[in-house]
Amino acid sequence: MAQKANPATRHVISINDLSDKDIESIFEIARAFLKELPDPHFPYRIGRSSKIASNFILASLFFEPSTRTRLSFESAMLRLGGEVITSADPATSSAAKGESLADSVRVISNYADIMVIRHPRDGAARLAADYSPIPVINGGDGSHEHPTQTLCDLFTLTKKNKQLKNLKVAISGDLRGSRTIHSFVYALARFGATIMPMPAKGMELPAHVGERLREEFGCQMVSAQKGGGDPSIDALYVTPKEPHQQSLFAGAEINLDSDVVEQKVDAVYVTRFQKERWQEKDQPYPKIDRKFLNEPKYSEASVLHPLPRVGELDVSVDTDRRAVYFEQAAYGVPVRMALISLLLGIKGKSLHKFQGGFERKKYPVYDQPRSVGIHCVNTNCIVHDPMEAQYVRNKFYIIGSDDGSRYKLRCVYCESDARRFVVASKKNKWFTKNATPLLRSDDQHFKELVVFANETDALANGFHSRRGSGESPGAAQEGGKRRAKSHGGS
Amino acid sequence: MAQKANPATRHVISINDLSDKDIESIFEIARAFLKELPDPHFPYRIGRSSKIASNFILASLFFEPSTRTRLSFESAMLRLGGEVITSADPATSSAAKGESLADSVRVISNYADIMVIRHPRDGAARLAADYSPIPVINGGDGSHEHPTQTLCDLFTLTKKNKQLKNLKVAISGDLRGSRTIHSFVYALARFGATIMPMPAKGMELPAHVGERLREEFGCQMVSAQKGGGDPSIDALYVTPKEPHQQSLFAGAEINLDSDVVEQKVDAVYVTRFQKERWQEKDQPYPKIDRKFLNEPKYSEASVLHPLPRVGELDVSVDTDRRAVYFEQAAYGVPVRMALISLLLGIKGKSLHKFQGGFERKKYPVYDQPRSVGIHCVNTNCIVHDPMEAQYVRNKFYIIGSDDGSRYKLRCVYCESDARRFVVASKKNKWFTKNATPLLRSDDQHFKELVVFANETDALANGFHSRRGSGESPGAAQEGGKRRAKSHGGS
Amino acid sequence: MAQKANPATRHVISINDLSDKDIESIFEIARAFLKELPDPHFPYRIGRSSKIASNFILASLFFEPSTRTRLSFESAMLRLGGEVITSADPATSSAAKGESLADSVRVISNYADIMVIRHPRDGAARLAADYSPIPVINGGDGSHEHPTQTLCDLFTLTKKNKQLKNLKVAISGDLRGSRTIHSFVYALARFGATIMPMPAKGMELPAHVGERLREEFGCQMVSAQKGGGDPSIDALYVTPKEPHQQSLFAGAEINLDSDVVEQKVDAVYVTRFQKERWQEKDQPYPKIDRKFLNEPKYSEASVLHPLPRVGELDVSVDTDRRAVYFEQAAYGVPVRMALISLLLGIKGKSLHKFQGGFERKKYPVYDQPRSVGIHCVNTNCIVHDPMEAQYVRNKFYIIGSDDGSRYKLRCVYCESDARRFVVASKKNKWFTKNATPLLRSDDQHFKELVVFANETDALANGFHSRRGSGESPGAAQEGGKRRAKSHGGS
Repeated sequence: MAQKANPATRHVISINDLSDKDIESIFEIARAFLKELPDPHFPYRIGRSSKIASNFILASLFFEPSTRTRLSFESAMLRLGGEVITSADPATSSAAKGESLADSVRVISNYADIMVIRHPRDGAARLAADYSPIPVINGGDGSHEHPTQTLCDLFTLTKKNKQLKNLKVAISGDLRGSRTIHSFVYALARFGATIMPMPAKGMELPAHVGERLREEFGCQMVSAQKGGGDPSIDALYVTPKEPHQQSLFAGAEINLDSDVVEQKVDAVYVTRFQKERWQEKDQPYPKIDRKFLNEPKYSEASVLHPLPRVGELDVSVDTDRRAVYFEQAAYGVPVRMALISLLLGIKGKSLHKFQGGFERKKYPVYDQPRSVGIHCVNTNCIVHDPMEAQYVRNKFYIIGSDDGSRYKLRCVYCESDARRFVVASKKNKWFTKNATPLLRSDDQHFKELVVFANETDALANGFHSRRGSGESPGAAQEGGKRRAKSHGGS
Repeated sequence: MAQKANPATRHVISINDLSDKDIESIFEIARAFLKELPDPHFPYRIGRSSKIASNFILASLFFEPSTRTRLSFESAMLRLGGEVITSADPATSSAAKGESLADSVRVISNYADIMVIRHPRDGAARLAADYSPIPVINGGDGSHEHPTQTLCDLFTLTKKNKQLKNLKVAISGDLRGSRTIHSFVYALARFGATIMPMPAKGMELPAHVGERLREEFGCQMVSAQKGGGDPSIDALYVTPKEPHQQSLFAGAEINLDSDVVEQKVDAVYVTRFQKERWQEKDQPYPKIDRKFLNEPKYSEASVLHPLPRVGELDVSVDTDRRAVYFEQAAYGVPVRMALISLLLGIKGKSLHKFQGGFERKKYPVYDQPRSVGIHCVNTNCIVHDPMEAQYVRNKFYIIGSDDGSRYKLRCVYCESDARRFVVASKKNKWFTKNATPLLRSDDQHFKELVVFANETDALANGFHSRRGSGESPGAAQEGGKRRAKSHGGS
Repeated sequence: MAQKANPATRHVISINDLSDKDIESIFEIARAFLKELPDPHFPYRIGRSSKIASNFILASLFFEPSTRTRLSFESAMLRLGGEVITSADPATSSAAKGESLADSVRVISNYADIMVIRHPRDGAARLAADYSPIPVINGGDGSHEHPTQTLCDLFTLTKKNKQLKNLKVAISGDLRGSRTIHSFVYALARFGATIMPMPAKGMELPAHVGERLREEFGCQMVSAQKGGGDPSIDALYVTPKEPHQQSLFAGAEINLDSDVVEQKVDAVYVTRFQKERWQEKDQPYPKIDRKFLNEPKYSEASVLHPLPRVGELDVSVDTDRRAVYFEQAAYGVPVRMALISLLLGIKGKSLHKFQGGFERKKYPVYDQPRSVGIHCVNTNCIVHDPMEAQYVRNKFYIIGSDDGSRYKLRCVYCESDARRFVVASKKNKWFTKNATPLLRSDDQHFKELVVFANETDALANGFHSRRGSGESPGAAQEGGKRRAKSHGGS
């Protein structure tokens, strides 16, 4: 019998794996740790270790360079009284011998009780969780997510601004390559924040993130121009369409547009250029300094940075009362202590809340072998790694629009969306641009279907178009173009 | 006074350093740990840590990349409540500054209570033990041995097949470069197993391993043809000549030849291509998959693999009930916990058995300085490492055949055998191909002798052949050839 | 509010950060640990772990390869019952992402209670301490210092020679590049030792070290010729001018010159060629072997080596009764345990002595921003590292001679001395080679001054020479030369 994942095991791969209540529990426990294990000189530091988790081992599995995230997790585990085993150098690891991630996880999970993983590929942490009998925490996967960083960010804001609801947060820098930003904006959106993107040129928020903000987190874009904002920096705000009913943090309602633009900024979140994710290494990049912060709208703005910084946040800010980034780094310990103790079940009272609290929407999953059919559209997704090619399946959530007119396939691992695809019936040998056949969720039916990225692929595999099907306009349009192309080519 | 090894300290460098009773003790304790520290969901996993070894530190000294072996040892030590110090990256170590292994060991052994060492050179672990005041465990030395892997392998078999005696085990892949295989076949032979070698082309079991199986473990080769086996895969079986009287596992007697061939296979042991030990990187290699396992003789065969795998064991086998390799990896923790606790003497009752139990045969040792005379025949042996050249001595066990007609010199470190050599007397200035002078074991006598690899070397060092000595026929024959050659050359 | 260092925190960056009483406390506690946690077989080894520091974490921050120092610290912390987090591979660290040392320290210090740092740049450990809220121990910074190695060296001598006062110690090898030697000779000088330098050609003690020995530690050079010593090896001895009144170790007075030369050598301290600090990799190098030690004057000399060695200390010495270098390595654990426990305040009785005991002389500090003025004269000083350029200030102790006629500026970080400089007044726009304006220590006055490396720089920045000031002769001479040069050039 091969080793299986334990279905009762909870993993934290995305910030969206945590409900608002979960986040509330984590922060409550983190605050308790700061109180119980204080540093007498600095209120934001854990000052000594406990024995709470002395039965447990954390495995630290880093396939990508890191010091702070790794040490922060390791410190958190040791402060809990637990122990740590570490694989931090990709060059001396089993991966260097050509081992797949699934194998590494299945082996190392036998040596520990909880695992944190960092990996250069988007979606790698979710794939790891698929094969792990112990809880997996995503310590950063490619450009995808870094949920524990976001927990630290939010916790820091609660320590400074008292409530998360209806914040106004400016985010500056590489909004495309920074997984930290992606986890962060989803969380901000959930709490009804107004987000002011201030990207470096060419490093805007990815389209798929903006789309999810609109479609799933009730956000809308508001031009700063209308409200009299600063057009040179932020062309658009991301604001909630309507006041959210968040269970966690009570707060006043907001008025859109003018209020949003005139509202003072609560926080400026600065990120470095993620040079390891870009081809071009030299880019013009916005720099936050004292002059920038002199603008009145930033007079009460906390300055956050996930660190390390390499020049985009001037050292002159370090002595400013608004600079909270080192404090933010310090909070990494109590916040991760809280998360680990919840996942290990050693904080009994909160465990119940935690296990009951996941509010992630359940979508049907289309599960397809590698040999034929659609693959994830993101070339950096873990499913495209040659080392994983021998076993990994392409799995997608089937996500419909509110009016049911459009469907998309979201990669289960990296969460990139495919909007164009055709659905083919193995039995009838036809295919259609209409996604409705996918929605009949009985397993037997699923096995008769195969999804292709486009008509060309379906035709090449011996399927023919099904006439007279009610296709969605968008897909038809795209399909038409492709058909023309493929006709010309064949 | 220079630091000395403690002669009472026990090391585990070869599987043959452990008696059958030792192995029995280890497995008994490992089973107890699985019972005392259980994972409630998976019976093969250790589920929590103890405080048994809280006074002790394990030093993890890896001169060659490793993740699983290192983390498995570290997890075992932490599960015992002990602590770990680790040097895992050869590039950042003292060795990078040009330090010898003997120095590294003498220093680091002061920082810990027990040490595990991995090294790319055959025999390095034995050399380390020569200089260590604390117990040394071999975590894999070149192509030589990997005894704790073998303990895990055997333990897994006991969990699946109930008894080790008279097993039939197929071993597939790189039988030459895999140290795991070498430790494993010695252990199988001790328990009277029938071994079916299924090597990749050119990666057969080394001649010296086959020879030891015949000469020291009572094995013989049986052609599968006679018994009607499958000639395309396994030409020869290695079987015990007669039923062994093993103290550990009671079992039925076997009949040779036909019985052996027709017996169902109990286990298929698969290993990867040890590409780091070969020049040619692309080789045809046998692959074990579902189709292979469909043969009736494998219907009850457990499939083992020391992992990592890189393609020689198809992922389709993972869901097969016979696949036990991840479970095998998990057993690494309780088995290593047991070994460590025995070596540290913290499991009192078993300690006595352990210390009394070594059944390794005692051979006289010929100890020769570097400057002149025979060196180990294995060029990858640690004695040939330039870094060790300043101090290492060439030491050999003097091993005779049962009838006393032939002798060989076995390197104390890598256990490679030299079968051709001449013995010279410093006092009398002659040399002889007869090994008998070596057998007078008084130290004074030893100091007057020097062994050369061949006559040419002896002649070049100013010795002359001793006429009329009673030379053993084999050596004489070889000596004759060599003499002819050396005459022509001089 | 940005994170600040805690001014009450004690750091050990230089051996001179420790008073004689501090050293006495450390040795007393180290001896107690050897007694309380003994290895039954070897009296110089710690044999088991305690729980004294179970509340604490040590951060091990190594920006340069190391095994023994890192593992020795980690073993010490674990023997105390504490825990360890480690960043040992520069290539996988935040520094590889371009993070400054100040940022790294401010972040990682949140994860631990005490920190040991090794860095290739001189002065890096002092800079780290500037930004750390927790105690920083220098684990070796460039060619500057390695104070805990010196503590182990001295402790070993006390175990062998009973008292540190008036020792005669030969030091052999690379006296220029070895930070170990620099810390060691300052300590020897404090205890009134006679030092016999035996440098490799071109690797003499740096001029600034010799100067400090003369000017601050009361040493003088005594030619061996006068006393009939061996002119081929050691041309000069460094001896105390007068018997020191050391509080720690009582001892007899010595007579200079002939006594010194004829006195037997108490210890030979051997160091390897620090090839990582030199361009030329192959150099003739003195080798200590049995023949060397056969000289009668070494008949009772303990042979020490900080290790690793690479050939300068022959392995034949290992079995000599005078060889103590492996024992010396073993003492690293109890000595570092003592230091850590003092810095953490967990050895209450001694803590008082320790905190009160620093006898470092207080000098006024000249603190200058980077943009203009003098920089440290040592190009390997941390202040010249491009990564630190954004924030680091140039700070110097203002140190006068006994007669007040000459001043020098000593870099606060690497302790290199600048002897030539000019002092300019921002208000009056003149500059002077007289250092006296620096000595008025009110802060307001300091802000009006800027120091330049020479007149050229001062002139280039728009200052003019102040006529008729009483300049020190040396500076005037140098200034004259430079002026001539700069006139020609402008």
